[in-house]
Amino acid sequence: MSAKEQQKRTDFERIFHPQRLAIVGVSTDGGARGFGIGMLVGLQAMKFEGEIFPVNPKGGNYAGLNFYKKIEDIPGQIDFAIIAVAAKDVPQALEACRKKGAAGAEILSAGFSELGTEEGKLLENKIREVAAKGIRVVGPNCFGIYCPRSGLTLLPGPDLSRQSGPVAFLSQSGGMAIDLAHKGKWMGLNFSKVISFGNGADLREVDLLNYLADDAETGIVGMYMEGIKDGDAFFQAIKKTTEKKPVVVCKGGLSAAGQRMVVSHTASMGGSRLIWQSVLRQVNAIQVQDLEELAEACLAFCFLPQKVFQRLSIVGGGGALGVTACDAAENFGMEVPPLAKNIRESVENLLPKPGSSGTNPIDVANPFVEPKILKEVLRTAAADEQIDLQIIVSLLYHYKTMARMLGKPIAQVAPYRELAELLGGVAKDSGKPIVVVLANSKRGVDDLDIVEMLALARREFLERGLPVFDDLHEAIRAINHVNTYYEKRQKNER
Amino acid sequence: MSAKEQQKRTDFERIFHPQRLAIVGVSTDGGARGFGIGMLVGLQAMKFEGEIFPVNPKGGNYAGLNFYKKIEDIPGQIDFAIIAVAAKDVPQALEACRKKGAAGAEILSAGFSELGTEEGKLLENKIREVAAKGIRVVGPNCFGIYCPRSGLTLLPGPDLSRQSGPVAFLSQSGGMAIDLAHKGKWMGLNFSKVISFGNGADLREVDLLNYLADDAETGIVGMYMEGIKDGDAFFQAIKKTTEKKPVVVCKGGLSAAGQRMVVSHTASMGGSRLIWQSVLRQVNAIQVQDLEELAEACLAFCFLPQKVFQRLSIVGGGGALGVTACDAAENFGMEVPPLAKNIRESVENLLPKPGSSGTNPIDVANPFVEPKILKEVLRTAAADEQIDLQIIVSLLYHYKTMARMLGKPIAQVAPYRELAELLGGVAKDSGKPIVVVLANSKRGVDDLDIVEMLALARREFLERGLPVFDDLHEAIRAINHVNTYYEKRQKNER
Repeated sequence: MSAKEQQKRTDFERIFHPQRLAIVGVSTDGGARGFGIGMLVGLQAMKFEGEIFPVNPKGGNYAGLNFYKKIEDIPGQIDFAIIAVAAKDVPQALEACRKKGAAGAEILSAGFSELGTEEGKLLENKIREVAAKGIRVVGPNCFGIYCPRSGLTLLPGPDLSRQSGPVAFLSQSGGMAIDLAHKGKWMGLNFSKVISFGNGADLREVDLLNYLADDAETGIVGMYMEGIKDGDAFFQAIKKTTEKKPVVVCKGGLSAAGQRMVVSHTASMGGSRLIWQSVLRQVNAIQVQDLEELAEACLAFCFLPQKVFQRLSIVGGGGALGVTACDAAENFGMEVPPLAKNIRESVENLLPKPGSSGTNPIDVANPFVEPKILKEVLRTAAADEQIDLQIIVSLLYHYKTMARMLGKPIAQVAPYRELAELLGGVAKDSGKPIVVVLANSKRGVDDLDIVEMLALARREFLERGLPVFDDLHEAIRAINHVNTYYEKRQKNER
Repeated sequence: MSAKEQQKRTDFERIFHPQRLAIVGVSTDGGARGFGIGMLVGLQAMKFEGEIFPVNPKGGNYAGLNFYKKIEDIPGQIDFAIIAVAAKDVPQALEACRKKGAAGAEILSAGFSELGTEEGKLLENKIREVAAKGIRVVGPNCFGIYCPRSGLTLLPGPDLSRQSGPVAFLSQSGGMAIDLAHKGKWMGLNFSKVISFGNGADLREVDLLNYLADDAETGIVGMYMEGIKDGDAFFQAIKKTTEKKPVVVCKGGLSAAGQRMVVSHTASMGGSRLIWQSVLRQVNAIQVQDLEELAEACLAFCFLPQKVFQRLSIVGGGGALGVTACDAAENFGMEVPPLAKNIRESVENLLPKPGSSGTNPIDVANPFVEPKILKEVLRTAAADEQIDLQIIVSLLYHYKTMARMLGKPIAQVAPYRELAELLGGVAKDSGKPIVVVLANSKRGVDDLDIVEMLALARREFLERGLPVFDDLHEAIRAINHVNTYYEKRQKNER
């Protein structure tokens, strides 16, 4: 049976939303790295929606759940299994899960081909043999699946969000998977599913891309890849996916030393920097340098309309910011055009003098310009037909000085809620997106109140559909990724 | 009198450490943007060491200080003046300060050549004429001077550190000056002097570089430049400086639009991207993209010995980190060589199994490896003669999970103090520097305790001489700047 035929038959619904879930290898005495019990704790903390059947040959119980001594003892069929037993016991456990009717299993255990030993490779082959009989496998040597809708979670993830969203993430690295899931929680990325597939003995980039291409829940695909197994199939799968939705790829192991590491990490083949660049460009996938850039690109894809934003207006305070903004925009092929004369004059009438400028970048001159004035500035600038998108660099952190003078907490003094509300309204009414940069140069022990206020502010902006970045340069880079993707996609569709 | 002759005579000691300081334009009714009164408040908060003489034509008083109605009314001589009156009144105020014997003045007021008007240019010329009679001027259109040793501070800077250190910063932008001063406070950059010189009517890049080149307090010079006045003089001054100490330059306005902005911001000439790159490379100045990179480069220059670090050992957790580390190191021309066999074996004997690796990057496999084990790992790896420098990517944020289980605050559970102490000892004993990366993917409203713990941890590491970065890629980029500078300097000195 070809991979494609098998995929058609794969019941991903039962894998991502299992009603009956076995955890094989739940030891309360710290064995097998405590992965099984860690996962049980995590699933309970996440309020996983299905029924859990823990398995431990010694029996026992935890948090109200009795442990089954054997997989075979579980009453009835299971949908999915989490396997966390010692490597040598994995093939047998997987076979037992298959016989119990599981559509799939994730194998958290390490000790397979990544060791580079014959024994490890043989054990991984045995996994593949069982899988071929009719159970799909995620892993081994992985952190599993995170699916907010069902409450499945990654290995050290008892505190991930249950809010579903459009971002899927496929990762050969468990660390990257859990890091992105955590970043998403505060950055405002919500996930359809995050899959850490480790060595990828069975399910890996090609099958998963093919699935996600047609998954209605998924609007954006992120990938952390170290190597691929079948170049042609990958090329077809990613091409098919990018025709429908953006795919953002972080390829690790592009250096010589990095490639050596890839072999020992997930036992897959690397490939040169140039080959990857050219292939990814050819299929209109977005290549990024690191997880930070990947998260920021996904954020822009989530929050911005599906189009190209050529001309920006940028609102901030201070002349150097304007200079920086223009440099960054030009670096990424965008423009910051001077506003039309009448609009510029209207903007200038709104702003404190001297020191302000209504040209574009718009310099509001001081950090305490009231939200309702800022709202008018953005509303006015949006009326310039040149402008596709607006960026506001918020200076909220400066309210610390005012808070200190008033003897009040900064979160009470900085008008972040009002600003978010008003700017949310402008974006909606004008139909032109607003991107927010929450700048902050104060992050020390004495200024954690600023960090807290900005975390609260971020949430307010996100709730109103405004994406938030830490830094202007990063915001513009992320917008550029959106431009690159839709420019090419529009060209291809013509 | 040539600029050089004048500089020789300039009494910088009286400018940076004034015993008697006038603030001209201290209005308590919000006039002239409140700069004067803001500065008075700031200086008092900073416990400025000298005597302050506020001047306001209407008289009045504030916080125990009586205002003089005229500069002439101040008894005796003054050393330095802060001028914050309306632009049209500036030349006269400056002349009065000169007559009072001031060695220099900073002019915070805006409304000069940056307006692009004839009137503005004329007014600035008048400043220059007064200066030529024998008073050095910083500004106009600037945020002034920050000098931790004397307590002089920048405009919105009542909360800067009084801790002196080796970093000087020259900035055409006031915003960049205050931002770097704030960043320095938590990043561990201590300053000799920060000078925001705005339009630079008198003192600017050339004079200030010439001064800093010979300033015993200054070991590293950072610059934010938009444009220069005299290319040849700048070339000579920066060359002379880099022969003695590193100079890190962020050049704003390299794009076409950015250059337009430069003209209106500080009324100086820009110059093409390529020209700047080649000039800066030729004089062995380090060019950076933004203030973030500038701060990180300065941090590396502050904390690392004056040499080239070709081969790194990197200690972290997780396979992808190793891949990323190798990619980043190779990007910047550094190596992460496999450790010698006996050393690798010793390291592996220290680490939990399975999942760890002693090759290099060293994968410690889990985030809860005890500080004393980590200390032994770094001590052992340092014994490999290949290794010039070690980087540890700390996983302290993972202690949140443990803190939650124990029902304790993370700052009590995460062993950051012990880790800082032990690693500080390893760096000292081995003579090989250790760079710390405090990674953290959790920054949301629910995880501010992690942010706080890491801010405390950062302080502990810094106190023991270990520089801290947020991100591995940024750390390696900063080390590379140190390498670039000393490689070329050693070559030149041979």
